[in-house]
Amino acid sequence: MGKNELHPVISVRLFKNEKCFGPGINELLKRVEEHKSLRSAANSMQMAYSKAWRIVKDSEQALGVKLLRSTTGGVGGGGAALTPEASKLVEAYQNYLVALNSAANTLFEETFEEFLK
Amino acid sequence: MGKNELHPVISVRLFKNEKCFGPGINELLKRVEEHKSLRSAANSMQMAYSKAWRIVKDSEQALGVKLLRSTTGGVGGGGAALTPEASKLVEAYQNYLVALNSAANTLFEETFEEFLK
Repeated sequence: MGKNELHPVISVRLFKNEKCFGPGINELLKRVEEHKSLRSAANSMQMAYSKAWRIVKDSEQALGVKLLRSTTGGVGGGGAALTPEASKLVEAYQNYLVALNSAANTLFEETFEEFLK
Repeated sequence: MGKNELHPVISVRLFKNEKCFGPGINELLKRVEEHKSLRSAANSMQMAYSKAWRIVKDSEQALGVKLLRSTTGGVGGGGAALTPEASKLVEAYQNYLVALNSAANTLFEETFEEFLK
């Protein structure tokens, strides 16, 4: 599918009673993994630390699972790392997006065939 | 899947170079079909008429397709109806959502199996 052809963009949010997980918290967790700190992860997304903290807390509460753990560093240290549950969740979400996008593209070509001529 | 169990909510937007179609314009067109007027459709969504008009124009321009046609009424009349292209698009989008959600639920149970225990 060329970039200028009509194509679907799928977005996935996970809910229980309320929203638990989506593109924002997923990106934030991936960046915590990379930067080993919530503050640096937030900075790298031009997001206020307080907002990042709130996003993590809201997701933890909705899921009923702890997503981040503190790591102690050297002087002025104190970073963050993903809990095993968060790592599994990020991986599952990523795998899910890949599988779903593949299904979405196939279904799209079937359903929108006449718009793609 | 129970409503309190973890479940995916999928949102679909259609793009060419830019966004062409999504949940907002789809809902608006369905309501034009029902109310036979863009103004009444907008009202029924608590949306300003000017905003509804802008959404239709933006989508028409991005798709390169006319979505609404004027219908003449009686005194003070003048309503709107979907063009054949808009009807086909709304139908295809609806069919696509049904098929995609079905695929999304199956894939979700496979991918998130361990989170659903």
